[in-house]
Amino acid sequence: MSGNSFGTLYCVTSFGESHGPAYGGVVDGCPPGLALCADDIQVELNRRKPGSSRHVTQRRETDTVEILSGVYEGRTTGTAIGFLIRNEDQRSKDYSAIAEKFRPGHADYTYWRKYGIRDARGGGRASARETVVRVAAGAIAKKWLKQRYGVSVRGFLSALGAIAIPFKSWQDVDANPFFAPNAALVGQLEKFMDELRESGDSCGARVNLVAQGVPVGWGEPVYGRLDADIAGAMMSINAVKGVEIGAGFQSIGQKGSEHGDEMTPQGFLSNNNGGVLGGISTGQDVTVSIALKPTSSIRLPRRTIDTRGAATTIETSGRHDPCVGIRATPIAEAMLACVLMDHALRHRAQCADVTAPGKFPAG
Amino acid sequence: MSGNSFGTLYCVTSFGESHGPAYGGVVDGCPPGLALCADDIQVELNRRKPGSSRHVTQRRETDTVEILSGVYEGRTTGTAIGFLIRNEDQRSKDYSAIAEKFRPGHADYTYWRKYGIRDARGGGRASARETVVRVAAGAIAKKWLKQRYGVSVRGFLSALGAIAIPFKSWQDVDANPFFAPNAALVGQLEKFMDELRESGDSCGARVNLVAQGVPVGWGEPVYGRLDADIAGAMMSINAVKGVEIGAGFQSIGQKGSEHGDEMTPQGFLSNNNGGVLGGISTGQDVTVSIALKPTSSIRLPRRTIDTRGAATTIETSGRHDPCVGIRATPIAEAMLACVLMDHALRHRAQCADVTAPGKFPAG
Amino acid sequence: MSGNSFGTLYCVTSFGESHGPAYGGVVDGCPPGLALCADDIQVELNRRKPGSSRHVTQRRETDTVEILSGVYEGRTTGTAIGFLIRNEDQRSKDYSAIAEKFRPGHADYTYWRKYGIRDARGGGRASARETVVRVAAGAIAKKWLKQRYGVSVRGFLSALGAIAIPFKSWQDVDANPFFAPNAALVGQLEKFMDELRESGDSCGARVNLVAQGVPVGWGEPVYGRLDADIAGAMMSINAVKGVEIGAGFQSIGQKGSEHGDEMTPQGFLSNNNGGVLGGISTGQDVTVSIALKPTSSIRLPRRTIDTRGAATTIETSGRHDPCVGIRATPIAEAMLACVLMDHALRHRAQCADVTAPGKFPAG
Amino acid sequence: MSGNSFGTLYCVTSFGESHGPAYGGVVDGCPPGLALCADDIQVELNRRKPGSSRHVTQRRETDTVEILSGVYEGRTTGTAIGFLIRNEDQRSKDYSAIAEKFRPGHADYTYWRKYGIRDARGGGRASARETVVRVAAGAIAKKWLKQRYGVSVRGFLSALGAIAIPFKSWQDVDANPFFAPNAALVGQLEKFMDELRESGDSCGARVNLVAQGVPVGWGEPVYGRLDADIAGAMMSINAVKGVEIGAGFQSIGQKGSEHGDEMTPQGFLSNNNGGVLGGISTGQDVTVSIALKPTSSIRLPRRTIDTRGAATTIETSGRHDPCVGIRATPIAEAMLACVLMDHALRHRAQCADVTAPGKFPAG
Repeated sequence: MSGNSFGTLYCVTSFGESHGPAYGGVVDGCPPGLALCADDIQVELNRRKPGSSRHVTQRRETDTVEILSGVYEGRTTGTAIGFLIRNEDQRSKDYSAIAEKFRPGHADYTYWRKYGIRDARGGGRASARETVVRVAAGAIAKKWLKQRYGVSVRGFLSALGAIAIPFKSWQDVDANPFFAPNAALVGQLEKFMDELRESGDSCGARVNLVAQGVPVGWGEPVYGRLDADIAGAMMSINAVKGVEIGAGFQSIGQKGSEHGDEMTPQGFLSNNNGGVLGGISTGQDVTVSIALKPTSSIRLPRRTIDTRGAATTIETSGRHDPCVGIRATPIAEAMLACVLMDHALRHRAQCADVTAPGKFPAG
Repeated sequence: MSGNSFGTLYCVTSFGESHGPAYGGVVDGCPPGLALCADDIQVELNRRKPGSSRHVTQRRETDTVEILSGVYEGRTTGTAIGFLIRNEDQRSKDYSAIAEKFRPGHADYTYWRKYGIRDARGGGRASARETVVRVAAGAIAKKWLKQRYGVSVRGFLSALGAIAIPFKSWQDVDANPFFAPNAALVGQLEKFMDELRESGDSCGARVNLVAQGVPVGWGEPVYGRLDADIAGAMMSINAVKGVEIGAGFQSIGQKGSEHGDEMTPQGFLSNNNGGVLGGISTGQDVTVSIALKPTSSIRLPRRTIDTRGAATTIETSGRHDPCVGIRATPIAEAMLACVLMDHALRHRAQCADVTAPGKFPAG
Repeated sequence: MSGNSFGTLYCVTSFGESHGPAYGGVVDGCPPGLALCADDIQVELNRRKPGSSRHVTQRRETDTVEILSGVYEGRTTGTAIGFLIRNEDQRSKDYSAIAEKFRPGHADYTYWRKYGIRDARGGGRASARETVVRVAAGAIAKKWLKQRYGVSVRGFLSALGAIAIPFKSWQDVDANPFFAPNAALVGQLEKFMDELRESGDSCGARVNLVAQGVPVGWGEPVYGRLDADIAGAMMSINAVKGVEIGAGFQSIGQKGSEHGDEMTPQGFLSNNNGGVLGGISTGQDVTVSIALKPTSSIRLPRRTIDTRGAATTIETSGRHDPCVGIRATPIAEAMLACVLMDHALRHRAQCADVTAPGKFPAG
Repeated sequence: MSGNSFGTLYCVTSFGESHGPAYGGVVDGCPPGLALCADDIQVELNRRKPGSSRHVTQRRETDTVEILSGVYEGRTTGTAIGFLIRNEDQRSKDYSAIAEKFRPGHADYTYWRKYGIRDARGGGRASARETVVRVAAGAIAKKWLKQRYGVSVRGFLSALGAIAIPFKSWQDVDANPFFAPNAALVGQLEKFMDELRESGDSCGARVNLVAQGVPVGWGEPVYGRLDADIAGAMMSINAVKGVEIGAGFQSIGQKGSEHGDEMTPQGFLSNNNGGVLGGISTGQDVTVSIALKPTSSIRLPRRTIDTRGAATTIETSGRHDPCVGIRATPIAEAMLACVLMDHALRHRAQCADVTAPGKFPAG
C-alpha cells in the first residue's frame, strides 16, 4: 500500500503514468446486479477529456475505456471491476528539455527526492491525467447511488482566477466547457482565458459540489466522519489546496445563533453545516467547495535547480491546461461519489437493522 | 471498523463518551526504545484541559492519564500502548432537559437517526471531550518526531470570531490561554469572550499549524498524499469545517508565476504550497489552517424538533466552551503530529534504501 | 498498525502485558441496539479463566471485565466498545531467573531481536494471557451472531497429546475442565495430565470448532475468503501450528468423487469442504480443526543462550499451563465468532440487495 | 474492498475471470530502484502455465504479461505496478452444459447464492486461473527479497494423492513437471496420473514450502503474526484446505521437551517451530505445508441441483487439471514471497532504528 488505493468498502486502485502505455484501475466492492457497460463510464470520461475546448490542454486522447472484468451479460457480478484506458498521444520528447530540471510548484522535485528516480515524461505518476481512473470509478459510483438511493452528485466552477461565478442553473453548467453555472459570464471567462494563455501564465479556480438525496445516517463518528473522508478525497486531487464543507471558512466569523441550522418537522431551515453533523449526513444537500492552485507548468521563465542541485531557469512548453480547475468538476464529482458510495455500504453493514425511531424530515 | 481508528502504521484507536466512566485509546506501531512516561502525555493533556481559564468550559477534569501497556522500564517496547483517562466530573442530569431534543448544529440528531439510540449525556461519543485521546496519541508522536527527526509541530489561534490575530511570536502563544500568537491582542480577545459569554452565544475560530523540520519525501502519491491525510485528519476534529494547506483558498486568485515556489540551491524562495508538492513533503515548513465553527450548545433559544419529530425550542445550559477553537490548538497539533509520524514510518518502509541522488537543499 | 488489531468491519484492538497493570481492548463496528452487559462477556472469560482445575496454570485471576464505553442503558450504541481487565496476580519476580535467557520454543528470543527490548515478565505481550481480549470480543460476536442469525459457535478438545478424543456430545464438553466431548475419557485425561505435570514436561493438543447456522453467502472471493480469514485468525492464537477446514489434510488422499460434497434439494450429502466453497459459506456447518504445540515453559532443563548470546541452560518454574490446548477452546471459538461476524457485516454491506434467485436448501 | 486485495505495505490487487478478456493486477508498495522487466515475471508465469505436460489442463495460454506502469527505464519507480495477462483460449461454450447446474465441491453454488448472479464460464472469478496474478506479484517479491535480503522462496510437491514424495534435492524439483523433489518417483507419479485421468476422477496433493535466509525479526505480535498472515495467504489459494507451519499437526503428539527448539551460540538445534516464534521470524528456514483438495470438475457423474433448486446430475468435461496441486507449487511460493516482503517492509517501518543488542546466531 503506497497511496494508490482509496476507500474502505468501495475501493478503487489506480495505476498508470502520463506517457506510459495505459492508465487503469480496479474497483472492488461494487454490489452485484448493477447494469453497467463501458458507455456508462465513457460519458463521464468525455466530460473530463482533454481537447474539449481551446482553453484546456490540446493533447489528443479519446480516453476510451475497456472493461476487463466484473461485468457479465451487462451486470456487475460483485467481483473486481478492472478497466483500462490506453494512452494514445504520448510525446515523451516534449519533456527532454525539462527532464533534468524541477518545475516550481510541481511534484517533479519531491518524487525525485523521495524515490531517487522519476519518470520525467509529463509528470509520470504525478500527472493529473491519473484522474481518468477516478472519473471512471466515480461513474460507477454515481450510477449506483442514483439507482439505489436517488442520490445525484454534481459540481460547477464557482470561480476562475479572481472571477467569481455565482450559481444560476444546472442547465448552464452543462452548456459550456468551463462547467460554469452562469451562461452570461462565459464570454468573460473566455476572454480571461485567452489573455492568460497569451501571457504564458496560469490561474487557480474554485469548484463547488452538491450531493442531493443523501439519506440521513451516512458517515461514522470520530475519525471516519463523512466530511473527513470527503476532505481527504478532495485534497488528494491534483492541485487542490483547500476544502470546505458547508459554510467552511465563513464559519469562523459566524455566531452559534447564526451557524447552527434550526430544525422544524419539515426539515432544516438552513444548511451551514453542509449536510453533515458530527461526521454523519443529515439528509440535506452535502455541499463542498475546493480551491485549486494554478498550473505549475507555465511558459514564463522561472528560477529553479536541476537534478544536480545547481541553479538554472525553466520555461515549460508542452501541452498543459492553463487552469486545471476547468476540467476539475467531473473529477471532484467522481471523488465525492466514491466517498458517498463507500459510506453507503459502510452504513448498511453496521446499521442495516436500525429502524427509524420516529417520524422525521425526509432524508 | 466504524471510524474509531486512525492511521496506517502509526495507528490510534479511541473509545469513550463524555459522561461514561472513561476515555482511552490504543497507539499501535510506535517504534521501540522511545523514552516515554505518563508525564510526556500529561503535559499535552494539560494544554487542552478544560477549566484553564474563564473562557472555556468549567467542567473540572484533571485528565490524568494512566499508561496501561507498551512501556517497560521507561521505554516503549514496540507493542500496543494502551492508556486510560477517567472522567471525574460527569453530571448526567445536566442533560435531562435536552435528552429528548436535538441541538441545532449538533450531532445529536444524526447519531439518533443513524444508530436509533444515543447516549444523550453531553453528546456521548460526539463530545469534543474525545479529543483527549487524540492529544495523548499526538504527544507520543510529537516526542518521537522531535527526537528522531528534529520535527516540531506547533499551532496557534489565528482568528477568534471576526478578530484576526497576526502572528508575532511562539513565546506569545504559550503565554495566554487562547494560544494567541500576539500578546498585545489578548485584552481584546478577553473582552470579546466576556461579552460573548454574557450574550449566551458562541463563535468560530481559525487555528494555524506549522510543522518545522519535516524532511523531504514524506507522503505518498495519488490517494495517500500527505496533504490528503492531513486534510482528513483535520476535518475529523469536532467543529472543523474547512482545511487549507499553504496558500489554500488564496491560490484561486493567484497566477502560476506567483504561486509556484521558485527554487535555488539554498532552498525555496516562498512557500505557497505549504511544504507539500504532489502530496510529498518538500522539506519546507508544512503549513495548515483550519476553520472551526461556533459551538452548537448555546443558551439562546432556538427552534428544533424532539425525538418524536415534533416542533419545540431548545436552550442549552450545561457547561460548554463558547468557542471550541480556543482549546483546538493542541488538538490540531496532535492530529498533524500523528499524520506526520504515520508517513515517516510509511516512507521508510518503502524508501529506506533510497540514497540522495545529488546535493540538495536541506530537508 | 503493528499487529494489534484484527478484522475489517468488526474490528478488535488489543493491548496489555502479562504482568502490566491491565489488559484491554476496543471493539469497533458492533451494530447498535444489541443488549449487552459485563456478564455477557464475563461468562465467556470464566470459561477461559486460569485456575479452573489443577491441570492449568494456578495464577489467580478473576479476569473481571469492566465495560468503559459503547453501551448505554444496556444496549450497544454503535460506537467503540472499550473494556478493561485488570491483572491481579502479577508476580514479576518469578521471572528474574529467566529474564536474561531465552526459553526454547518461546517468543522471548524473537521479541528481543525484533525490538531490542522486551518485557520479560511472563512473556510480556507474547503471553497467552492476551487471549482474554479475544474472548471478550468473541463474547460480543457470539451474542450478536446468535440473536441476529441464529448462529452458534462451539468447540471442543479433540486430542490431548497423543490421546484422541472422539466427539460424543456437547453436554459432555461443558461437564469437564478439558472441554472434552466425551465424559468417559476424562479419567484418562486427568491421569495423563497428572503424570505430565509430575514429569515437568508439557504436551500439545487439538481443538475442533463447529459454527452452526451460518447462512450461505458469507465470505469474499480470492484473498478475502472466509476460510482464509479463519486460518489467519486461528494461526494468530498462541501456540497454534496448524489449521484445517473441513476434511483438511485428509483431502490430500481423497479422490474428487469422494471429496466433492454432492447436493440434493434437501441439502448437501456430506461436508468435506467444512461449510466453505470458493471462500464463501455454503450454509452447512463451518468446521475447523487446529493444532496447538506444547507449552514452551517447562521445568525440564534445556540448552539455550542468554541475552549476550552465550550458551546456558534454562529451567522454567513459574506458573504455566502444561498444555495450553486445554484452555484454548473458548479462545478459538472467540476468534471464529469474530471472523464470522466480520463477514456477516461485510456480506450485507455489498449484497444487502441480493434476493434469493430460486428455491434452495436452507442456509 | 471485497477480497481482491492482499497485503498491508506490499499490496496486490487482482481482477479477471477465466473466460473474460484478461487478468491483471496492481502491485503497490514495491520499493523504487529494483531492476524489473516483463521477463522477470514471465519466467515465474511459465512455471505455472497450463499445458506444460499431459497431466495438467490442456488449455492453451501463453500467459504473456505486459507491464503497464511503475517501471521506468528498467527500474521500479516506487509507484503502482500495473500488469495485464490477456486470456487467449477462452471456450465459453464448453460451459453451456453446466451453466445451469452446480458442481459438487465447486464455488459455483456459493457465488450464485451470494451474488444472485455468476459468470458460469470456467468458474468465472472463482477459477484457479486467477492465480496468474498471484504468481506475477510473487515474482516481483521474490526478486526483491533475493536482492535485498538474500531470501529464497522455494516449494515442492510432497504428496500426490496418497503417494508421499520424500525430499531428495532442489535439482530434482526443477527437472519434472510435478515439482517433485525426487526424480526416482516421477515414473510412479506419471503412471498414477495417467490412470487417474483415464478414470475421470481427480486427486488431492500436498505442497511444502521453504523460505531460506529470512532474517530474525519479521512479523508482528498478536494478530499480525508472520505465520498468521502466511496461513491466511495459503488458505486463500484455490483448493487449499489445510496449512501447517513447522511441525504443524505433529506438534499435537509432541512433548515440550521435544518440540521446543533448543538454542546454542551457533544457532537452533532443530526447527519444529518452522522459523517462527510468537509470530516473529527466528532466522531459521520458514517451513510451510499445505493440503490441496481434489479438483471438483470431474467427468464422473455426480448428484447435484440446478439453478432452480431441482435435483439433477452433472458430468464436467471441459479442460481441467485432474490435480490442481501439480501446478500449485509456484502459486504457493508466490504467496509466501508476498507475505514475507510485506513483513520485511512492515518491520523496517517500525524497527529501522533497532540495533542488535548483542552477538547472536545469524539471521
